Amino acid sequence: MTEKIKAYIAGFLDGDGSVYVRIKPHEGYKYKFQISPYIVFYQAKKNRLILKYLKDKMQVGYIRDRNDGICEYIIGDLNSIEKFIKWIGPYTILKRKQIKLMSKILQKKRNVKSVNSFLELCRFIDKFKKLNYSKKRRNTENQVRKVLKQRNLLTP
Amino acid sequence: MTEKIKAYIAGFLDGDGSVYVRIKPHEGYKYKFQISPYIVFYQAKKNRLILKYLKDKMQVGYIRDRNDGICEYIIGDLNSIEKFIKWIGPYTILKRKQIKLMSKILQKKRNVKSVNSFLELCRFIDKFKKLNYSKKRRNTENQVRKVLKQRNLLTP
Repeated sequence: MTEKIKAYIAGFLDGDGSVYVRIKPHEGYKYKFQISPYIVFYQAKKNRLILKYLKDKMQVGYIRDRNDGICEYIIGDLNSIEKFIKWIGPYTILKRKQIKLMSKILQKKRNVKSVNSFLELCRFIDKFKKLNYSKKRRNTENQVRKVLKQRNLLTP
Repeated sequence: MTEKIKAYIAGFLDGDGSVYVRIKPHEGYKYKFQISPYIVFYQAKKNRLILKYLKDKMQVGYIRDRNDGICEYIIGDLNSIEKFIKWIGPYTILKRKQIKLMSKILQKKRNVKSVNSFLELCRFIDKFKKLNYSKKRRNTENQVRKVLKQRNLLTP
């Protein structure tokens, strides 16, 4: 990828994209929650081709049609997001903070070795709330802590 | 501006921006309608700084806070739009067609010499309806023609 294409994708992300991490309840997981990082581009379905173009350039992620006429290009696995950040991160401006926080979180996610380091990971994810001004976030570190206590997975 | 910045702005425009021309009723004008071209970037007010950054780089246009929490960076005069197109146009992908149509329209706008060339200009502006999938456009060539006939400005 040329510098030109990387800068273009960074601009597109800054204008239109999202960088965030979800904490989702998941009984099958050791700490009862799944940590899901996302980088997403949104467009009306009629503009699907530009998302295809971005995907062809990046060679990671997948495209999904929602039911509401919106099309999403989603990069959701750790390796792909790390590649994306390495390539595109340096060219971002508006989402620079989110990209840096995402980097830290991925590193921490790879190194979870105890329930406490899992809770620390959740605390870092909570920081997205402020950066992205998200209102719906329910599963915070506190919620995870509560559930882990209930399951006796967290000794006081 | 470096290639990197131009490509970034083009990506931002493709992800988030609008390229369109309005036909507005205006009694004071020779042909009773004003032709207003626009290139606009939108962001939530909290992201005002990135619009300021774009404006500082471009050195054209102005920033406006709307009442609904949205902030707009608007480039609205002919010379500024022509500059923008010259710099950023070659780096756009998604909005390339709109940029090309805008170029033609600005050229035609500069060369309006008769009521018929004004109507031809309006016919070109109508093409934005399809490109932008706009639904609200009321003042089309037909509407302009109707008004000009009523005012005896258009001989059959």
